[in-house]
Amino acid sequence: MRIIENIQEMRRWSEAKRREGRRIVLVPTMGFLHEGHLSLVREGKRRGERLVVSLFVNPTQFAPGEDYAAYPRQLDRDRELLEAETVDILFHPSVEQIYPEGSQTHVEVERLSSLLCGVFRPGHFRGVATVVTKLFNIVRPHVAIFGSKDFQQLQIVGRMVQDLNFDVEIVACPTVREQDGLAMSSRNFYLDAKEREAAKVLYRSLQMAEALVHEGERRSDRIIRAVRAEIEKEPLARLEYLSLCDPTTLEEVDRIEKETLLALAVWIGKARLIDNTILKT
Amino acid sequence: MRIIENIQEMRRWSEAKRREGRRIVLVPTMGFLHEGHLSLVREGKRRGERLVVSLFVNPTQFAPGEDYAAYPRQLDRDRELLEAETVDILFHPSVEQIYPEGSQTHVEVERLSSLLCGVFRPGHFRGVATVVTKLFNIVRPHVAIFGSKDFQQLQIVGRMVQDLNFDVEIVACPTVREQDGLAMSSRNFYLDAKEREAAKVLYRSLQMAEALVHEGERRSDRIIRAVRAEIEKEPLARLEYLSLCDPTTLEEVDRIEKETLLALAVWIGKARLIDNTILKT
Repeated sequence: MRIIENIQEMRRWSEAKRREGRRIVLVPTMGFLHEGHLSLVREGKRRGERLVVSLFVNPTQFAPGEDYAAYPRQLDRDRELLEAETVDILFHPSVEQIYPEGSQTHVEVERLSSLLCGVFRPGHFRGVATVVTKLFNIVRPHVAIFGSKDFQQLQIVGRMVQDLNFDVEIVACPTVREQDGLAMSSRNFYLDAKEREAAKVLYRSLQMAEALVHEGERRSDRIIRAVRAEIEKEPLARLEYLSLCDPTTLEEVDRIEKETLLALAVWIGKARLIDNTILKT
Repeated sequence: MRIIENIQEMRRWSEAKRREGRRIVLVPTMGFLHEGHLSLVREGKRRGERLVVSLFVNPTQFAPGEDYAAYPRQLDRDRELLEAETVDILFHPSVEQIYPEGSQTHVEVERLSSLLCGVFRPGHFRGVATVVTKLFNIVRPHVAIFGSKDFQQLQIVGRMVQDLNFDVEIVACPTVREQDGLAMSSRNFYLDAKEREAAKVLYRSLQMAEALVHEGERRSDRIIRAVRAEIEKEPLARLEYLSLCDPTTLEEVDRIEKETLLALAVWIGKARLIDNTILKT
């Protein structure tokens, strides 16, 4: 595995592979890799001939007061994990290279960015859309792989690709979970033992919603009330939002009449955790 | 010359030319072509091996109440002019193709877009940056050519290319003028005979500023006062703005100590005309 830290070098490598007719896959990450990321890497291997994993903790997608400085980092371990997966390139640029002095351009997917997490993390999805645009222009992948835990991000990137005419295929991978159902996330690292136990409430509440729909419940308010009650039973959990919405537009729905996204964000200690499921009638 | 109206077809053509190793040049226009555009086309011929001229009157760069509907259009004549220049592709997409329903993504170069024309044309440069991003992603040029009459646009596109890591070389061409100095512009079409005569005041006032600097004047306020007085002598002209600023940051300067941009916008009848010059000490 080659490590590239320089934008020009990354660009040259990709341009050369494209000229050879190779299909390039990009897996963008912020590092501190877990099995969720590795599932994206393995899907990436299947989707193309050359695999680039980017590792960049993107400052512009953290709002002031969020955990940019505290976000866990472990480059050596990440490198070992990616070497074991026979990744071709680890692209690991510095903040100064990605955002040199004078940078002032952003990309924004307006409506989709204003909903769900966007209400509570101002500027977050603008930062995501901007850095993904930059990564697409530097790495020039044919395919890019994203996880479904960050469902809103996935929808925003897909919309952006359509709206800005990027010639990149977006592939979504399913959420990878711990044995007890907790969605894998770098931010699970923030949890102590008691909080880790409490965090099971996210998946438990999603399962409760699935069961209600399976039993025939179609009214959003009923499902939301039950999920909220489940989360409130857990004293270490604080619900930030809970939404039943259209999976494409992310607009809330009153009734579950077709595939509907249930998305939530819950604070446990200093970890803000998100999870989601698609409810099927 | 081939006319392409479809995004997928344009993309396929460009991808094929790139695979053949051809250097692709893009000249983006809104049509109603004049000698200014043709100078860009001729520069484009020199800069690469395949030449694409896009013709798209971009609705998102017109603010509500501006002249989008009235903007002059003459596709047949434009086609003849481009055929005579042996352009390879005229890319002429519909508004519905460029902005299908549900489009909601924009690109914005923040600081540069808030100055000069940006003060008076809210959203204009956001529309420009967004459509140029889309054209770059569809046509995938190696080089793109822009005119210097739209100096702020040129700086914004250059900044955007840096900030979003587009692999496109931006080439600036000098402003082409009529015999009497009026900068060529599709909007000159709006002028009646008297207004056309009055429009000479723009170039005359730029020349006056150049003469003052040549004589040793370095104080911005003195130059601005003289230029303003010259424009106010013309009863059909209404000055919108007048700025002496750094050509890269577009921030106003108090003294002319290095190359300085003098930029102005003047209304004459229903035509909003812009012009500029670089003052050299």
